[in-house]
Amino acid sequence: MRIACCQFAPEVGDPEASAARACAALSVAVEAGAGIVVLPELANSGYVFESAEEARAAAVPADGELLARWAEIAAGGDAVVVGGFCELADDGRVFNSAALVDGSGVRAVYRKLHLWGDEPRWFSRGEAPAPVIETAYGRIGVAVCYDLEFPELTRGLALEGADLIALPMNWPREQPRSDGQSVPRLLALNAAYTSRVFVAVCDRAGEERGQGFEGASVIVGPDGVIGAAATPGAGVEMLIADCDLSAARDKRNGPRNDTLADRRPEHYARQLTQPHGAR
Amino acid sequence: MRIACCQFAPEVGDPEASAARACAALSVAVEAGAGIVVLPELANSGYVFESAEEARAAAVPADGELLARWAEIAAGGDAVVVGGFCELADDGRVFNSAALVDGSGVRAVYRKLHLWGDEPRWFSRGEAPAPVIETAYGRIGVAVCYDLEFPELTRGLALEGADLIALPMNWPREQPRSDGQSVPRLLALNAAYTSRVFVAVCDRAGEERGQGFEGASVIVGPDGVIGAAATPGAGVEMLIADCDLSAARDKRNGPRNDTLADRRPEHYARQLTQPHGAR
Repeated sequence: MRIACCQFAPEVGDPEASAARACAALSVAVEAGAGIVVLPELANSGYVFESAEEARAAAVPADGELLARWAEIAAGGDAVVVGGFCELADDGRVFNSAALVDGSGVRAVYRKLHLWGDEPRWFSRGEAPAPVIETAYGRIGVAVCYDLEFPELTRGLALEGADLIALPMNWPREQPRSDGQSVPRLLALNAAYTSRVFVAVCDRAGEERGQGFEGASVIVGPDGVIGAAATPGAGVEMLIADCDLSAARDKRNGPRNDTLADRRPEHYARQLTQPHGAR
Repeated sequence: MRIACCQFAPEVGDPEASAARACAALSVAVEAGAGIVVLPELANSGYVFESAEEARAAAVPADGELLARWAEIAAGGDAVVVGGFCELADDGRVFNSAALVDGSGVRAVYRKLHLWGDEPRWFSRGEAPAPVIETAYGRIGVAVCYDLEFPELTRGLALEGADLIALPMNWPREQPRSDGQSVPRLLALNAAYTSRVFVAVCDRAGEERGQGFEGASVIVGPDGVIGAAATPGAGVEMLIADCDLSAARDKRNGPRNDTLADRRPEHYARQLTQPHGAR
């Protein structure tokens, strides 16, 4: 089974062009034989909005044309797509969402729980846990970008049975760190290794209104070893890795150990799952 | 404030020599001006036991001479010591423990929650959460070796206010990974970065009964940047890093974000803190 991450460049202010690029990249991946295709965060809208109005203008409903088109392309190759999109909810709110879509249509919509930077100016916060969806290729957990900094979330997806965490991303480029470390890559490796799951991060390429993006797409196996990684600075790129997702069902991390069965949940801090301020 | 990690080589089968080496290393660190000194896991006993009897023979009570001696040396420099030791409990059980000791005596004993490899043959599992202890230099969370693979535990220490996670370690050397990655270092960086805490890992040097050890000691700052790291293959070594632990109280990870306040605990998987099998 082949996983593809389509690191392309949506364009803020031009939702039509962004959506067309997402569909084109998806088509290329399906034609390349990908069973699971991951697209960037906000693939239909771009990221660096100037106003809530601009974000709203780019937002589309989950039952609209955009995801119907993804489903249609997915159907052509029995593929599963996980992609980020700017969502207009039934109640008029706008969310930074990710959809899991297959040939049968939209299987799940996840609204990003952890918003970064200016995002709260245009997006409402998600109000439901990140989901795990059973697909033809295995169980896929869905999260978005900054969610990856929350080990509770990625560990939770593994505990709920995810074989793969598919994670659309728009990682704003930062000053290079003194240690040269790529933070999103560090986080992806760690999430994969500690829970013995596959992690497929699809970052974006390009620059918007002076803001560059890391282009840090990476596919990591449950041993924490990279299967494919974007070339630093390459920009638009499609990552491909052939994976057997069933490997994530084996949680043994040594002859006598098991990374999930060895947990001691009764001794972990209650605060992990308690609302702020609760005792 | 100076942190030291004393990566030395205890010797299984010779608890007296092991304890003497631990005290010697501790003295050197205190004389070097360290306010916080971390010693390896099982510093008084070595690691590769051949039988439960051998482990038991090396085990000492928390209120015995070993930790009294650590307290005495600590008192000479107003230091705080976190070190692993093979513990004989009042009820006769043997634990893989870590103590936090200062000039006033033993402040806390933590019994390792997650046992690795053959450890369950000689050790009972800990039955209480990893602690956070207020010290003259800041709040120190204590964990041991394989605990570092459990993000629930390290995150929990940060949630309970740890500025520094001090982690005695005996990391058995593995086949070099295809990606050259040092797993304990990856885990330490990630724990520090995601919770904006300091992490001081003190691994051991040497070889026992054919088993080598990684020698992966590392001190990481709350930005996930390494302050000091053992030279690969160097063996016995003392790491020193000068740190301002109060930096860990600032959880901002961007102009509008905060790595702990941004958490959405009401939406994390209940299984994180629920006993196995509970619903």
